[in-house]
Amino acid sequence: MSRAVNSAAFTSVGLIGKRADPTVASSLAIVHDYLVGRGCRVFLEAETARTIARFQEHALDYGALGPAIDLAIVLGGDGTLLASARQLAAHGVALVGINQGRLGFLTDLAHANMLRDVGLVLDGCARAEERELLQARVFRDGVELFHGQALNDVVVHKSGDYGRMVEFEVAVDGEFLYRQRSDGLIVATPTGSTAYALSANGPILHPRIAGIALVPLCPHALSNRPITLPSDVTLDIRVLAGNPARLHCDGQTALELAAGDRISVARSPHRARLLHLPGYSYFAMLREKLRWSESPPES
Amino acid sequence: MSRAVNSAAFTSVGLIGKRADPTVASSLAIVHDYLVGRGCRVFLEAETARTIARFQEHALDYGALGPAIDLAIVLGGDGTLLASARQLAAHGVALVGINQGRLGFLTDLAHANMLRDVGLVLDGCARAEERELLQARVFRDGVELFHGQALNDVVVHKSGDYGRMVEFEVAVDGEFLYRQRSDGLIVATPTGSTAYALSANGPILHPRIAGIALVPLCPHALSNRPITLPSDVTLDIRVLAGNPARLHCDGQTALELAAGDRISVARSPHRARLLHLPGYSYFAMLREKLRWSESPPES
Amino acid sequence: MSRAVNSAAFTSVGLIGKRADPTVASSLAIVHDYLVGRGCRVFLEAETARTIARFQEHALDYGALGPAIDLAIVLGGDGTLLASARQLAAHGVALVGINQGRLGFLTDLAHANMLRDVGLVLDGCARAEERELLQARVFRDGVELFHGQALNDVVVHKSGDYGRMVEFEVAVDGEFLYRQRSDGLIVATPTGSTAYALSANGPILHPRIAGIALVPLCPHALSNRPITLPSDVTLDIRVLAGNPARLHCDGQTALELAAGDRISVARSPHRARLLHLPGYSYFAMLREKLRWSESPPES
Amino acid sequence: MSRAVNSAAFTSVGLIGKRADPTVASSLAIVHDYLVGRGCRVFLEAETARTIARFQEHALDYGALGPAIDLAIVLGGDGTLLASARQLAAHGVALVGINQGRLGFLTDLAHANMLRDVGLVLDGCARAEERELLQARVFRDGVELFHGQALNDVVVHKSGDYGRMVEFEVAVDGEFLYRQRSDGLIVATPTGSTAYALSANGPILHPRIAGIALVPLCPHALSNRPITLPSDVTLDIRVLAGNPARLHCDGQTALELAAGDRISVARSPHRARLLHLPGYSYFAMLREKLRWSESPPES
Repeated sequence: MSRAVNSAAFTSVGLIGKRADPTVASSLAIVHDYLVGRGCRVFLEAETARTIARFQEHALDYGALGPAIDLAIVLGGDGTLLASARQLAAHGVALVGINQGRLGFLTDLAHANMLRDVGLVLDGCARAEERELLQARVFRDGVELFHGQALNDVVVHKSGDYGRMVEFEVAVDGEFLYRQRSDGLIVATPTGSTAYALSANGPILHPRIAGIALVPLCPHALSNRPITLPSDVTLDIRVLAGNPARLHCDGQTALELAAGDRISVARSPHRARLLHLPGYSYFAMLREKLRWSESPPES
Repeated sequence: MSRAVNSAAFTSVGLIGKRADPTVASSLAIVHDYLVGRGCRVFLEAETARTIARFQEHALDYGALGPAIDLAIVLGGDGTLLASARQLAAHGVALVGINQGRLGFLTDLAHANMLRDVGLVLDGCARAEERELLQARVFRDGVELFHGQALNDVVVHKSGDYGRMVEFEVAVDGEFLYRQRSDGLIVATPTGSTAYALSANGPILHPRIAGIALVPLCPHALSNRPITLPSDVTLDIRVLAGNPARLHCDGQTALELAAGDRISVARSPHRARLLHLPGYSYFAMLREKLRWSESPPES
Repeated sequence: MSRAVNSAAFTSVGLIGKRADPTVASSLAIVHDYLVGRGCRVFLEAETARTIARFQEHALDYGALGPAIDLAIVLGGDGTLLASARQLAAHGVALVGINQGRLGFLTDLAHANMLRDVGLVLDGCARAEERELLQARVFRDGVELFHGQALNDVVVHKSGDYGRMVEFEVAVDGEFLYRQRSDGLIVATPTGSTAYALSANGPILHPRIAGIALVPLCPHALSNRPITLPSDVTLDIRVLAGNPARLHCDGQTALELAAGDRISVARSPHRARLLHLPGYSYFAMLREKLRWSESPPES
Repeated sequence: MSRAVNSAAFTSVGLIGKRADPTVASSLAIVHDYLVGRGCRVFLEAETARTIARFQEHALDYGALGPAIDLAIVLGGDGTLLASARQLAAHGVALVGINQGRLGFLTDLAHANMLRDVGLVLDGCARAEERELLQARVFRDGVELFHGQALNDVVVHKSGDYGRMVEFEVAVDGEFLYRQRSDGLIVATPTGSTAYALSANGPILHPRIAGIALVPLCPHALSNRPITLPSDVTLDIRVLAGNPARLHCDGQTALELAAGDRISVARSPHRARLLHLPGYSYFAMLREKLRWSESPPES
């Protein structure tokens, strides 16, 4: 799933900055000028243009940006890249993230070397890795209320007091899986398996696993354990009578759920195309970002 | 900590029913008449009298009820008994719970045998078990904003979207313990160790353990683990700048927290006195209520 | 991966019984006679013939049995089926298990209906599900010492006193993954994910997941977590200087390991073909065998 | 439980070195000479004298050493200190550990400052902390086969192949607790709660908790969870028919167990007296030794 990238492809580039973060403004201008100097057509995502860029020309909202560009360069953290990926996945745009601070799971270019690294991407040195997304739909009384995508996770979460567990029933391709009382349920992609799902004791899934992890949040039953299902299944989560719940996609509140709502979660038809430069290592990232499997000092 | 109870003590009895639950009304009347027949003075908790009892005489609010009674009989589930225990602990009132449905962790008399069992309590057959409570205080800018008690747990919990972790710092008797980013922190008594804390992977603490468990909720760091501290320590939890948080005592929302708030948690000077009849077994209750350590069928 | 099975294929059937278990002898004879009556050629696995069958004709050891049969019927528990699967996978033989006692994860036909169910298999009503196996090789000083297969798991385990952790280093396709001190490491297939790996807190992987779970046993570092890797990788586990260790395939001791040994684990070129009758449900099996996600009684 | 120590007490000092570790020989000689210079009578533990000391005078085996000394100085790691504590607990000897390498949980004086620190101990600057020990007895057919002590843990562990779970039944003060199939059971003191028990997902118990943790090793049932019991109980672990098991005290093999054996575990009448200098912090030790609750780098 990691493929060499045709450098010729990158002639139209979109720039996206962390929302309302003025510290990325100057980086944005530098990258902008560099791209123009390399002969690229450069577009700004509209919100980025409005809130942080010092220039407004060539601003497009996501709907127009997707078809116009081959490559999106994201300046910010993983949250910004997640949002861009959800918006641009349908258009096959390649994504690369530059992190102002510490590297993220998804934003793996360092600010310090950003022009060199953007140059390498334009030179065709990057490889593209495809990541599956989820799509979630909510049906109430047979009517679709919501439709959204997630690169990390779709989460059903209690929305009221901590003591009020949510109760729901899960079916996989129409077959009953379980009924659960808990604080909620995380449905995570491999990409999301190192995010919220991991802190809820979910499994780490390598990005090439075609799987979806179901990770309960503080389940009432001691015998609950996460399960990883093939990513081609369709999940139906039916909210049972009781306490208030909320749906989140990648940590963004989608909507308040009501008893009887059915949330359908399946693999999105689109994939996110993340670019990595040579030297990128998923395992090294796990060790560095999570201190994963790091030994304590010897005694 | 389990002691025989002097039956002579139980001459004034309070009756407390599950809030707004009309199904307990008839049980309440039956127990009331039985107690009167046994020569007890009987008082009704005011809210119980207002919402579910068919009679209003001798209704006292908790402030007046505590000093007036030796024994409180609670009809309802664990939630009702938790509330009564918090209210009556200061007065040394003995508590016993009658569960209308399945037995609870705390309400261990069955509805089916309630008059026989209440009779045994009046006959002096019960033993009293003392359970520690916690008291929580919240200070903002040096001013005490809140003061409450909990028999199960004091919980600091994020109150906004799921993705917004709370960040706080914990000190034990003034010494730095850790800084944590998580969905929240449960501070549980042994009584609470089989409640919410258990679903967050906290340790089961036998009621005679003089300890307090600190159980993180979905912590960001992989190396977080619960710790059990002696129950005579004072914890200070300082909410750091950032996301909205909320304080709960026994699952009841206490107040919204702000950055800089200091929550002080310590053992309450009062204890709950729970009565158990012969045959009560904490371990049997664990196995039955939690399916704890129950083997799957043999292969 | 679940496919309808051509009934015409099943003309030569092998019978395999649980080693040294005389209680399966009469079932074996009944199934034997039934198969002969259906016009099948029937062979007995040699060990089965020797230790439990009442007849010795047509006994073949596994090396000769594999090429001679289309279908193997296993009478016993999961252990017997695991052994048969390892032996017969290279020959594409379909496997079905009849459990004398409670159903197993793999032996999902009940003794009570065995002739009806074997009949349904011969009628072509079963579907075949393919399961990946692992192959393990051990190299010492460049020389291959051992070569074996596993349907559940390959395990490196300390072999001496409990206090003596094993230390090893793991590489994935030649890239360093981690160094670990622990009681051992389980490398599990999806089939094995509900066996030993699950009791070590490993993830449940649906059989259609093309993944391998690495599950540490009592790791020294708190930040260790299992990881699921794509099943097309090659793992290298290098035993570091120190304490005695042992290699197990499906719970059978393979050999004692020495410092410097390299264990190479990869997907086997062969797959086990398990037959299931209509009505088989993986999820139902999880719930029944593990009490997975079963709610405790309501309070 | 932490008390100031009367410096006058330390006139007779025992020296104990890590078994068969020649690197401690020179440190031993230096500490020896320092103690003599301070006017102490100094004794060497016999094994230490035999295998590593450059001098043999005043060597006593543990039986004679205990009554002869007020203070034991241990040069080595936690394992050496555990052994000394088990041997000397009955005599009320104070213990302090000097670690040649990184500090241990129990050996909290650094080699670099050892003479200064030993001086401070002799000056009466240390405080004594008492730690509970366990005693284990094994009965076969009513006859006591074994009697031993443990400062960390008493462990029943399968002794054969990994796949062969042990089956046993546990009673607490004569009351049935549970029946379990697992790789084994750890019975840990608070001191041991940060050792083997922690890697088996047991709870961290502060040293002042009067509790014993029961931590199952890879239990077969998903609903198993550790429990912490009051330290004044007596546990009876009865090995059921089946697979081979072994008893360990502080990681040392005690004996092979047979079906029907009863292991009785209770608090020892003796306590270990560990000395700590000002500045010692249990919580800091947890954070440093375990990377406990250490946050990963910010993203």
